[in-house]
Amino acid sequence: MSEELFARRTFLQVAAAAGAGAALGVPRAASAGAAARAQRAAAPEPNGAGVRLGVASYSLRKFPRAKAIEMTKALGVRWINVKSVHLDYDLTPEQIDAARKEFTDAGLTIVGGGTITFETNTDDGVRRYFEYAKRAGMPVMVSTGAPDVMPRVEKFAKQYDIKVAIHNHGPEDKHFPSPYDVLKLVKTMDPHMGLCMDIGHATRAGADIVQAAADAGPRLFDMHAKDLKDGTAKESQCVVGEGVLPIPDLFRQLQKQRYPGYVNLEYEIDENDPLPGMQRSFAYMRGVLAGMAPSTRKA
Amino acid sequence: MSEELFARRTFLQVAAAAGAGAALGVPRAASAGAAARAQRAAAPEPNGAGVRLGVASYSLRKFPRAKAIEMTKALGVRWINVKSVHLDYDLTPEQIDAARKEFTDAGLTIVGGGTITFETNTDDGVRRYFEYAKRAGMPVMVSTGAPDVMPRVEKFAKQYDIKVAIHNHGPEDKHFPSPYDVLKLVKTMDPHMGLCMDIGHATRAGADIVQAAADAGPRLFDMHAKDLKDGTAKESQCVVGEGVLPIPDLFRQLQKQRYPGYVNLEYEIDENDPLPGMQRSFAYMRGVLAGMAPSTRKA
Repeated sequence: MSEELFARRTFLQVAAAAGAGAALGVPRAASAGAAARAQRAAAPEPNGAGVRLGVASYSLRKFPRAKAIEMTKALGVRWINVKSVHLDYDLTPEQIDAARKEFTDAGLTIVGGGTITFETNTDDGVRRYFEYAKRAGMPVMVSTGAPDVMPRVEKFAKQYDIKVAIHNHGPEDKHFPSPYDVLKLVKTMDPHMGLCMDIGHATRAGADIVQAAADAGPRLFDMHAKDLKDGTAKESQCVVGEGVLPIPDLFRQLQKQRYPGYVNLEYEIDENDPLPGMQRSFAYMRGVLAGMAPSTRKA
Repeated sequence: MSEELFARRTFLQVAAAAGAGAALGVPRAASAGAAARAQRAAAPEPNGAGVRLGVASYSLRKFPRAKAIEMTKALGVRWINVKSVHLDYDLTPEQIDAARKEFTDAGLTIVGGGTITFETNTDDGVRRYFEYAKRAGMPVMVSTGAPDVMPRVEKFAKQYDIKVAIHNHGPEDKHFPSPYDVLKLVKTMDPHMGLCMDIGHATRAGADIVQAAADAGPRLFDMHAKDLKDGTAKESQCVVGEGVLPIPDLFRQLQKQRYPGYVNLEYEIDENDPLPGMQRSFAYMRGVLAGMAPSTRKA
């Protein structure tokens, strides 16, 4: 049996089991219309565990778009969260169309954009990013900004039917150091408003990332994956699997809560030669998912 | 909790569970005296699953001993199976002592040697390799040779209390293409005689490596790990985790049968620059073991 077939079969088993869990009250993704449906419709990562791995293109910020696309393909990844360095906010609609075609022609799917900073609390200042995201086909905007801009962002998120995943940036972030700071804000907002948990920054802010994923439940829209040798030190970032973050427990929790988003590797180190460390990070994460997946062998 | 602590705690849980299995008749390692005891006494790989990953130094055959030691350390591995290119058969006993010290000074443990070919069916021809292995502190000799030399090898294995793990080399091997060809020979021999299953060659020879591990039971002394994109093509060797071999199922089986040996990566490709692919292979295998390990979180 091929690995692909193996993975598909296992995914169905996992999905069936998770479906039973849902009936028992396991939280499900907030329904946010077309965006959520499109996200759910995407194929699973062929890993048997139903957790989908993508690339946050910030990892490839030193390389132009074409090279970043080539590198993402070399990683065996089909999902990408696009940073503005690879899709400038000032492009014309036609330029955005052409850029989007570059991604899709390479077999990649843009699963989100960001991190986007809402720096101006005016309709025009917020609308421009939604126009950008809509044109680029982004179902999720990983975002940040002052809390007082967020009600206006919420209004546009509903209008455009695009999810906004507010990103926590660790102790230095005066608005959203921890995922819980995001959750506190969004819990009373429209279901289009949620969290992009950066697991490195979350850990540095003192959050238990496994518990935080569970607590976020359907508000967890996106994730930035990384690892730290020292859970308190930003400079200790390392290849995923070589640090202290509890990746297997996190993935088990994501599987349990049927996380519908992506785990996007944001590899901030080795910026001029990120591929070797990214390959090792994906190898580890894929290994974890393969180790978690139930065997399909007969007993 | 540190990963190391996590791993130790989990290992104890796994070991306890496996102990219960042993009472129910799960096969255990053949008792082969001091060698087996020394092997069991070694610390577990800190992965929570009790499967220990090492390097077969044949992977590093283009590099001299000092460099091979440095590369093994860079892989975060402490166990090494030493090929003659890194420890020549013609060294004097004192030279072997000095070489062995190079490994131990670097924090490495020689867990075996080989693959060693018994090419001469005489006492002197066989004894020289046992003298070599004894001086080098090898508890296991990964070996091959014509079947008719093996009764003589058995005699020395008992005398020297060193295990002999006969290596299967795939369809081209006229004596031992499949692990089952080895098992057929050794099943009536002394418990010092067993198998080093090369999982790539075994797959090419048509063996189901998971079933073969189970069938070998206590005769499984050592293992050469690799992966193939195509289970029938020697030239398709690839980074472990990127091929078709059922690594997670294999590791689950090893855990189940309390395999007391090592899974030694024999990475035969990229011979002039093997480290990147070896790093990815270890990242994947460690991920699998981490994904298999039970969570230590409270429910």
